[in-house]
Amino acid sequence: MNAEIITIGDELLRGEIIDSNKARLAQRLMLLDVDCRHQVSVLDDQDDMRDVFLRAAARSDVVLVSGGLGPTRDDLTTEVLAETFGRKLELDPASLAAIEGFFARVGREMADVNRKQAFFPSGADVLANPIGTAPGFALAVPRRVDGTVDGTVDGVGAGAAGEVVFFSMPGVPRELDRMMDEQVMPRLARLLEARDRAAVSGAPRRVVRAALLRTFGMGESTLEAELRDLARDGEVELGFRTAFPDNSLRPVARAATAEEADRRIAEVVRAIRAQLGPVVFGEGEDSMESVVGRMLRDAGRTLATAESCTGGLIAERVTDVPGSSGWFLGGVVAYSNRAKSSLLGIEPALIEREGAVSEPVVRAMAEGARARFGSDFALATSGISGPDGGTATKPVGLVWIALATARSTHADSFVFAVDRSRHRMLTSQVALDWIRRSLMGEPLVGPSLMRRAGGSSAPG
Amino acid sequence: MNAEIITIGDELLRGEIIDSNKARLAQRLMLLDVDCRHQVSVLDDQDDMRDVFLRAAARSDVVLVSGGLGPTRDDLTTEVLAETFGRKLELDPASLAAIEGFFARVGREMADVNRKQAFFPSGADVLANPIGTAPGFALAVPRRVDGTVDGTVDGVGAGAAGEVVFFSMPGVPRELDRMMDEQVMPRLARLLEARDRAAVSGAPRRVVRAALLRTFGMGESTLEAELRDLARDGEVELGFRTAFPDNSLRPVARAATAEEADRRIAEVVRAIRAQLGPVVFGEGEDSMESVVGRMLRDAGRTLATAESCTGGLIAERVTDVPGSSGWFLGGVVAYSNRAKSSLLGIEPALIEREGAVSEPVVRAMAEGARARFGSDFALATSGISGPDGGTATKPVGLVWIALATARSTHADSFVFAVDRSRHRMLTSQVALDWIRRSLMGEPLVGPSLMRRAGGSSAPG
Repeated sequence: MNAEIITIGDELLRGEIIDSNKARLAQRLMLLDVDCRHQVSVLDDQDDMRDVFLRAAARSDVVLVSGGLGPTRDDLTTEVLAETFGRKLELDPASLAAIEGFFARVGREMADVNRKQAFFPSGADVLANPIGTAPGFALAVPRRVDGTVDGTVDGVGAGAAGEVVFFSMPGVPRELDRMMDEQVMPRLARLLEARDRAAVSGAPRRVVRAALLRTFGMGESTLEAELRDLARDGEVELGFRTAFPDNSLRPVARAATAEEADRRIAEVVRAIRAQLGPVVFGEGEDSMESVVGRMLRDAGRTLATAESCTGGLIAERVTDVPGSSGWFLGGVVAYSNRAKSSLLGIEPALIEREGAVSEPVVRAMAEGARARFGSDFALATSGISGPDGGTATKPVGLVWIALATARSTHADSFVFAVDRSRHRMLTSQVALDWIRRSLMGEPLVGPSLMRRAGGSSAPG
Repeated sequence: MNAEIITIGDELLRGEIIDSNKARLAQRLMLLDVDCRHQVSVLDDQDDMRDVFLRAAARSDVVLVSGGLGPTRDDLTTEVLAETFGRKLELDPASLAAIEGFFARVGREMADVNRKQAFFPSGADVLANPIGTAPGFALAVPRRVDGTVDGTVDGVGAGAAGEVVFFSMPGVPRELDRMMDEQVMPRLARLLEARDRAAVSGAPRRVVRAALLRTFGMGESTLEAELRDLARDGEVELGFRTAFPDNSLRPVARAATAEEADRRIAEVVRAIRAQLGPVVFGEGEDSMESVVGRMLRDAGRTLATAESCTGGLIAERVTDVPGSSGWFLGGVVAYSNRAKSSLLGIEPALIEREGAVSEPVVRAMAEGARARFGSDFALATSGISGPDGGTATKPVGLVWIALATARSTHADSFVFAVDRSRHRMLTSQVALDWIRRSLMGEPLVGPSLMRRAGGSSAPG
């Protein structure tokens, strides 16, 4: 089954908003093992819309349309779909009542234009919108053999094979998501079942299961090399997704039954974890900070921070985790040398002699924070994130990171040749990863792709 | 002139990444007054790609293609464009040297597969990529009269009117942006000039100028009402763009000459600023933190922070501004009550009596930070960002913000009924806005849309 996604709106074509609807719809199609072969965006323009609808009816089995269901004159989806496929517009009294009810609930007066949203092409199946004024609809039309470029309608269905189903949904993301999940996904599942039953020959449709494994510290090409054997298994497909500074792995397993697909995806997740060890830091919606928080909470340990170049980013990330007050005691952003001395108790002479970006100072910062906050762990960072401030011996990109624990203080330096924002993000990621690795008894390493500037670990 | 944008890659069709390339390309087309009528995404599939290329050559004058220029077997753009329009692939020795140079510069060995990236369709105009391995290219092909659905190539150019120019660019956003700005935009401008000269009849193309005004504190509907009269002027179009917590205004002016368009856009920017006053905090690429930083630097003043609920977000935002070490002295993330006392000198009895989220404590935090860091300004936040931790008198969403200056301490409270991340972002935005308003002599207010919980200002 081939699917197509069409998003409608001048604002998309002008680049005024980034269209995330297509990605969210496509992800859901993947879970049903429906191939999305085409994605199209089109202006609120009658001729252009007719053209893309005709073309979709010629090449796709299912067409997800988002947008153009509002009450204004620019909102043309219903009208153009009806006209393109030779349907009349009919009032659905139940939808009109629902729209009136919506306005009553939010305490606003319903404008006359909103009546328009209760009209649908004849034969359409209305899709309820419990959180907005625009109901959607499903419309099955005969397949077209050809989609012409000039937009003329040359009659529908001559010699066509089967039907094409259009699902027209609102463009507002949360309304779209809910309608897709509650109304469209079950209908798609039924369409797929009917197709399987009708299939005279060929393999039945397969069940799909996907996982998402979050990794840090290994480049995409290294990951690919490490997992080459897994990727060779025809039953499992392995996708890579980079969202700096993480690389995520997305294994997708297909099988004849749900049980078999579940077994396969569990197996591949186990195999990936066995191969990559601590490089995998989480699954699904996990972030480095949420994983670190969970581990600290479970271990009954606490954290404090002393940040220079990361400027509060580590503290900001960990406090973004709900419940972080249980294990994060606080931090100091010691941007000036005076703050390093007055708030963390670092000897001004040490800073003078070694420089703020140095191993002795970053160690003293971590140990000072640990003492002042009374935490089990303390992280410190000091570096030159750029774009200015580098010297011959301390180039832009150099950073020292330290982790103080009850037993010892570990410090290491890196040169991250990336821009200021990425430098700060990467530094905070390595620092947080050290907490995780420390709690797992793993060596405190940095990302394999970044040139390491030196380092040492000594009792502190 | 009609433009079309085609983005290529399986990851887009699977919804694994949100495609922001299309929006950024479309924005740039708008600046040249080029209409973008179609946006299409397609799999790394030879037949599908051929089909969309043919269709684009039938309906568009300019086609921007992004993606599929990498070294792997999945990267098919160059090959399919050449095949579709009957061109041979030819090695460009200069590009090969540039790719070899790129690998030498980053200290990595060039793989054999990268040689492929130095081949281009015959007759193509190579577009340099100074920051990646994939050069782009421009390829002019005769217009097609028809794009067939089944993807067969039925010969090119029969009876076609004029040429269609394909610009093939890499999919990596920063490489794409740079190539579009440096290589494609000047070529498009020349194409437009040539078209204007060749035009026998019809009005000449209009010059477009756009501006971006960043506002904070006023909801979109209020902004629309405030600016209703401006929007009525037919020569100026006013767009709205929300990127939480800001609402941006995007006036677009069109005129016959560059001078006239410049004059119009300057006039509308002046009118908007006059109407909205301090609600406009910046233009173009300005962020609240960059504006606050510039104002502090220009005024020779310094800032420190004492954050509880924002957890380092204010410090993180201000230190993201290059050069912030000149005016940001540092901050304390006083997440625990112990940290509030030991690092900011707040009496434990005060916290005990009033609670951490209270006016006296937030005032003491701001004044404590100002004293300890020796700064001119100090900001403090204390609130309940949720999802848990609320009580009947102090609900989730309540936040106290304080600004201490040499003259006085201002404190106010708000209830922001948004999720944890937005609560923290909005709180940090109001706090930073107070610095800006204080330096401008404007009243320290909060966002108009949020329910205010109370407040007071007293000498501190």
